[in-house]
Amino acid sequence: MDLSKLADELRNFEGVTRKKEIKNVVNNFNFQEDYDFDIVVDFGDDAAIIGIDDENAVLLAADGIWGKLLEADPFWAGYCAVLVNANDIAAMGGKSIGMTNIIGIKDCDKGKDLLKGLKEGVSKFGIPVLGGHTHPDAQCNVLDISITGIVKRENVLRSDAAKTGDKIVFAYDLDGKIHEKFNLNWDTTSMKSKKYVRDQLKVLEIIGEEHLANACKDISNPGGLGTLGMLLEVSKKGAMVDVSKIPVPEDISLNHWLKMYPGSGFVFTAPENKTKELIEKLEFAGIESAVCGEVKNDKKFMITDGTEKTMFFDFDKEYICGC
Amino acid sequence: MDLSKLADELRNFEGVTRKKEIKNVVNNFNFQEDYDFDIVVDFGDDAAIIGIDDENAVLLAADGIWGKLLEADPFWAGYCAVLVNANDIAAMGGKSIGMTNIIGIKDCDKGKDLLKGLKEGVSKFGIPVLGGHTHPDAQCNVLDISITGIVKRENVLRSDAAKTGDKIVFAYDLDGKIHEKFNLNWDTTSMKSKKYVRDQLKVLEIIGEEHLANACKDISNPGGLGTLGMLLEVSKKGAMVDVSKIPVPEDISLNHWLKMYPGSGFVFTAPENKTKELIEKLEFAGIESAVCGEVKNDKKFMITDGTEKTMFFDFDKEYICGC
Repeated sequence: MDLSKLADELRNFEGVTRKKEIKNVVNNFNFQEDYDFDIVVDFGDDAAIIGIDDENAVLLAADGIWGKLLEADPFWAGYCAVLVNANDIAAMGGKSIGMTNIIGIKDCDKGKDLLKGLKEGVSKFGIPVLGGHTHPDAQCNVLDISITGIVKRENVLRSDAAKTGDKIVFAYDLDGKIHEKFNLNWDTTSMKSKKYVRDQLKVLEIIGEEHLANACKDISNPGGLGTLGMLLEVSKKGAMVDVSKIPVPEDISLNHWLKMYPGSGFVFTAPENKTKELIEKLEFAGIESAVCGEVKNDKKFMITDGTEKTMFFDFDKEYICGC
Repeated sequence: MDLSKLADELRNFEGVTRKKEIKNVVNNFNFQEDYDFDIVVDFGDDAAIIGIDDENAVLLAADGIWGKLLEADPFWAGYCAVLVNANDIAAMGGKSIGMTNIIGIKDCDKGKDLLKGLKEGVSKFGIPVLGGHTHPDAQCNVLDISITGIVKRENVLRSDAAKTGDKIVFAYDLDGKIHEKFNLNWDTTSMKSKKYVRDQLKVLEIIGEEHLANACKDISNPGGLGTLGMLLEVSKKGAMVDVSKIPVPEDISLNHWLKMYPGSGFVFTAPENKTKELIEKLEFAGIESAVCGEVKNDKKFMITDGTEKTMFFDFDKEYICGC
């Protein structure tokens, strides 16, 4: 394995480098006022966490789907809009309440396919669209979805809570296929039953309730290592990860796999004595999981293939999202 | 007054006619499953209402700002994105928890102005942006905001709860100015203090808590009568409204005024014995209010100038949004 090449490739992968923009945007929204609600986490996690009373917190997330994906396959774009938001709430240990959408339709045929895909996503994941706004006369085709969820405050799975010494667990549904039009999309849900995919989301709620992990993040555009990088960055930690231990589907190279956006993929950090139960729960839901490394107290994110080692991100000197 | 001309003009006003598209979109999202939460209202109100326990409901709304407004004055577009969402939650008697935004930036200067306006809106109304998504490489400039709020279930102000015999109260902050670039925007907030505009939102919470109205809706793009029309449509009622009683700023014609999107404008239906207290509360917050008509049991929305009468919408034969 050419470990340096892997590290270079992933560091310069657009899914990772695009996250740098977040810092500039987030700086605009620094909210310092006295407020009626307890803003536990705003940016930098899969969803914002707002305490509404002593016991409960509301989760807020938003994702925009468009550009290439929307032009090339509007049905799949509509479907994925639901998928990615459902995963954002699940990754917090939360239960989805509902979505709102904003649709801009320039091209009517694409608009119809987009709505069909959205409808299929709602039906598959069982999360309703409850409101929104439609622009029938848009300058470009746009689909933006926001989702609201709820979670018990004590059960929330945060990104920024990794602890030194935690084991790092990569968890992926490996039973899937590369999407025919987007070779970075690992589709594991379109061919499975409603019950199956909903149970995969539900298992994250159970992991939160049973306190089986200290930190968790949904693997998305930055891929497996990029997503872990963001988790480590907001946790102010480093790590050593043995990439040869990461679950990978047959016939896909590790370099490609680590850039893929999986239908159901999460990275956890958990105390060593919890990892057995954590992995059992995930694998019962069809999500293959393995301990692949450990959280370190310094801010160096190192990777190894079992023999060589290389620096992936040095958070003393650089950042992924800067949150 | 040429009452027929007024009715014709408003019926064919784009702010009203565009609402017809809602029906086609909403039909896609009919959600019939057993669900963990109690979906009290989805489409057709200022916000969706979802019961999360016996006592509390979450409110979800979304608005997209773009096209002409965003191109012509991105700062104002960013500011208004906060304003319209804040009003959506207020009109439900709710308290805003936070917003998520999705920003698409094609033109960098416009993007900066848009962010400045958004920041100004957050600072003015005191509602934080807690998450979102930014596309730095968009095909067009887009700003979509979603908002989540909370309300006691028993205090919620719905659109669909107007009762036969209710008095119709139009309520507007008349102290403002026509926006220099958009003659349908009645700006009443940019020149006022944070406390003043926040108190105007807060008064709607109090109206809900004190059960001073049966129905309420935020006056938005369809203008005063168009907004009341949507409220009557979802309530399955008709009305007789004396347009000469609607509060209007000096130097603005009634025909123009009834197409305007006000900074702080609401229409209520309330039992006769509550209207005095309702109007006092609103006027204490600087929102001029008047009884202008009555809710009727048929589905005919009639208007009068005190002498003549004409049909505005006959909901037995036609619809505005079809929800």
